[in-house]
Amino acid sequence: MIYKLLEALDQTFGFDQAKAHCDIPCGIYDPIASQIAALTVVRMIDLMTDLEKNRPEAHVAFINSMARYIAVKEEHAEKAKHEVRVIWGDYLKQQQLEKYPDAHALVHKIMQLGSKVRQTADRETAVQFVEAINQFAQIFWETKGVTTKRAKAPYKPELELVYPNL
Amino acid sequence: MIYKLLEALDQTFGFDQAKAHCDIPCGIYDPIASQIAALTVVRMIDLMTDLEKNRPEAHVAFINSMARYIAVKEEHAEKAKHEVRVIWGDYLKQQQLEKYPDAHALVHKIMQLGSKVRQTADRETAVQFVEAINQFAQIFWETKGVTTKRAKAPYKPELELVYPNL
Amino acid sequence: MIYKLLEALDQTFGFDQAKAHCDIPCGIYDPIASQIAALTVVRMIDLMTDLEKNRPEAHVAFINSMARYIAVKEEHAEKAKHEVRVIWGDYLKQQQLEKYPDAHALVHKIMQLGSKVRQTADRETAVQFVEAINQFAQIFWETKGVTTKRAKAPYKPELELVYPNL
Amino acid sequence: MIYKLLEALDQTFGFDQAKAHCDIPCGIYDPIASQIAALTVVRMIDLMTDLEKNRPEAHVAFINSMARYIAVKEEHAEKAKHEVRVIWGDYLKQQQLEKYPDAHALVHKIMQLGSKVRQTADRETAVQFVEAINQFAQIFWETKGVTTKRAKAPYKPELELVYPNL
Amino acid sequence: MIYKLLEALDQTFGFDQAKAHCDIPCGIYDPIASQIAALTVVRMIDLMTDLEKNRPEAHVAFINSMARYIAVKEEHAEKAKHEVRVIWGDYLKQQQLEKYPDAHALVHKIMQLGSKVRQTADRETAVQFVEAINQFAQIFWETKGVTTKRAKAPYKPELELVYPNL
Amino acid sequence: MIYKLLEALDQTFGFDQAKAHCDIPCGIYDPIASQIAALTVVRMIDLMTDLEKNRPEAHVAFINSMARYIAVKEEHAEKAKHEVRVIWGDYLKQQQLEKYPDAHALVHKIMQLGSKVRQTADRETAVQFVEAINQFAQIFWETKGVTTKRAKAPYKPELELVYPNL
Repeated sequence: MIYKLLEALDQTFGFDQAKAHCDIPCGIYDPIASQIAALTVVRMIDLMTDLEKNRPEAHVAFINSMARYIAVKEEHAEKAKHEVRVIWGDYLKQQQLEKYPDAHALVHKIMQLGSKVRQTADRETAVQFVEAINQFAQIFWETKGVTTKRAKAPYKPELELVYPNL
Repeated sequence: MIYKLLEALDQTFGFDQAKAHCDIPCGIYDPIASQIAALTVVRMIDLMTDLEKNRPEAHVAFINSMARYIAVKEEHAEKAKHEVRVIWGDYLKQQQLEKYPDAHALVHKIMQLGSKVRQTADRETAVQFVEAINQFAQIFWETKGVTTKRAKAPYKPELELVYPNL
Repeated sequence: MIYKLLEALDQTFGFDQAKAHCDIPCGIYDPIASQIAALTVVRMIDLMTDLEKNRPEAHVAFINSMARYIAVKEEHAEKAKHEVRVIWGDYLKQQQLEKYPDAHALVHKIMQLGSKVRQTADRETAVQFVEAINQFAQIFWETKGVTTKRAKAPYKPELELVYPNL
Repeated sequence: MIYKLLEALDQTFGFDQAKAHCDIPCGIYDPIASQIAALTVVRMIDLMTDLEKNRPEAHVAFINSMARYIAVKEEHAEKAKHEVRVIWGDYLKQQQLEKYPDAHALVHKIMQLGSKVRQTADRETAVQFVEAINQFAQIFWETKGVTTKRAKAPYKPELELVYPNL
Repeated sequence: MIYKLLEALDQTFGFDQAKAHCDIPCGIYDPIASQIAALTVVRMIDLMTDLEKNRPEAHVAFINSMARYIAVKEEHAEKAKHEVRVIWGDYLKQQQLEKYPDAHALVHKIMQLGSKVRQTADRETAVQFVEAINQFAQIFWETKGVTTKRAKAPYKPELELVYPNL
Repeated sequence: MIYKLLEALDQTFGFDQAKAHCDIPCGIYDPIASQIAALTVVRMIDLMTDLEKNRPEAHVAFINSMARYIAVKEEHAEKAKHEVRVIWGDYLKQQQLEKYPDAHALVHKIMQLGSKVRQTADRETAVQFVEAINQFAQIFWETKGVTTKRAKAPYKPELELVYPNL
């Protein structure tokens, strides 16, 4: 039944559009926002781990910092997920998705990783989160016909991000 | 390469969980929020169409109402998309998704429809948006082992929504 | 003096409207959003209590989860209060309120309980919060001429919610 | 039945508190935020009326300004309602409310006026909105034992606001 | 090069406006929002310090309150910074700034203090934050030709705030 | 008096920090978010101008699109201003600012341009807005010892942005 619904929708509304266009209100699509947000998640985990090891004397100072790191981790994990969903849901059209049959699964995996990095303070998961989003960024730039390179981000944590060649 | 990444992630982090659980901070999952939001989009289009036909004398009164309907349409289309993304991305796990191989495509279609209802004031698209979300709600309740029924929503527009049998 | 003000306002602006209508930008009114939010508050308290009893070894893991539960409890207590205020303030008109002389006091009590469930982690208060909102939902459906039933919510905590018969 | 519920709640949870205290996360209560927001609503209506009379040549310039005024009117009407709800719902306790038996009705009226000023561009309603909130501010300061005065706000529209004598 | 850019902008766009006007969507400018927010930061620090000294027996009750105080401190420190930025960036024009050559440095200092009060629970810094904003409020009222006075705020912490003479 | 205050603050709190560090909750600083937001403002103006020239037949379709472009322009102008304020207020310390004596004036100019692009649909002002933020980005990367280049953004409007050499 879902198959019939999808067919009907395609015929009626012509979603198979060749060129990507701006969907607004999203404006301009760029995965960098998601990549920086995921990087921030790793950064927060590093700060949390470091704070736990080197606890300040005053308990209030400790809890104040820890609570803030956790809140920022929450915010940026959600931001990373949202930005990816917007590019995948609004920008990527059927035609492009046919070239990337694993795209849906990749995006779903990004969402799952995004949940996990919120529920835990596990750095390895967070690094995987960054890498999955890099994969997605790679696909994005390819659909726009822009070549990419990998380079260390110019701030901690200095993980590699996929950047467009401009 | 994406395939290898997905394999590696599955082995390391064990995402194949049999039972759904609350991911928090999302708390409790229920598609009704998304269904009501999509219904609101149809309602706004009806109000916009009606206002255009029966323009108040004062132009300021006309534009004040039109602008507000458009803003609410925006807000609820986005809300509907977000709520679906949360259930799909956080709640639906690999095991459940294997039973619904069209789930990813359905969710992507919901996102596309959600963009279209923002860009236009086309009622037919908005009704399709509600229906696609009903389909998604159907899947959701099935994964929880809860039977469903269809019934008219108790407010305008009185379209059918999928409801759990409680 | 307040009495004179209220009289004057009634005469000038005709708030005694017989039928409820959509106030937009609120669109469609349904207390379910508030009921689910209040249920989430109880859920968070249960998770907090459980986490305290079964503390993970790693302190960072413990504080990460506890902080997130508290944040979600905050967010949903406020959401529940807001949704009730919107229905009470925008939808319920003088004519309907005359049939329910305790409505104002009930809504004020909901606000007070909503504050208390934020300030504490007391499950009993949170259950009373859910019940007070059920009472409000009951009133709401009656004003729309829709009969209701009580049924266990299909997710934890499986407390009874008031549902419309559709 | 509601009466019994209210009685039971009062006995169990001791809401009859003599002194007001900070409920946090709201922190410090002050009606000025609501009063300024309501004043802004009047200001926007004045700007909308003025713009309609003196339409710029370029239609885009006209619609750009009109849309922005409407959006600000929306935002501040909601803000005014929210701030009043917070003081009424969180700060005013049963004991204080017994001295002001019309308080609930006044707050409900403020909500109704707040809806009306969003749905229309009627200055008279907006001025009544400011005045109703002034009444509420009066009650607030009385409960704190602070005398008040009326003075013109130091910005357009220069309506009278109730200010505490400090 | 920056100097040339600034010159060019001034000539083209005429920013040297003698009178302040409402920039909307900000509507009406008043530093009181920022002052109350900064006061709230001090209040939260006092509550955090007090809670640390008088820890409730139940650890969950302790952490629930501490986390909430920290979250409110965050929110209000940011709010105070934002409100000052809006008045400085939108309302203060070049002409007024020429009379106050230290204004930029003062605003930057407010931002720095606002960051520090988030990162710490140091009351002295928070009191300096309130005072710096008082200085800014003083400038604001002077540009509007309104005289000011200092008076204790009518809520805890009862620090002095700069108030306009109305 | 302000001068004495600033001196006292400097001595007490040691703001003259040599190295930049992450202030959290902002995490990682990167002006790209502000640059993309400013670019979006130009894009919206282009879409608004284009829509005005090529009005769709249906008035509702016209107003629906125009209102959405205006709303996005609003949102991104504010976002661009906010991101710049965060880098300037949180990241740039006194020591760095001494090397850039025009930084405060440049940031204030960015705020003024940001207001103007909201109040108008003037493309030239919006292009100046992008350029002023490019100037700011230039300063930012210099303080981090990272060289930059200019390149056309890979999406419309294809204006030049300052990019770090990675």
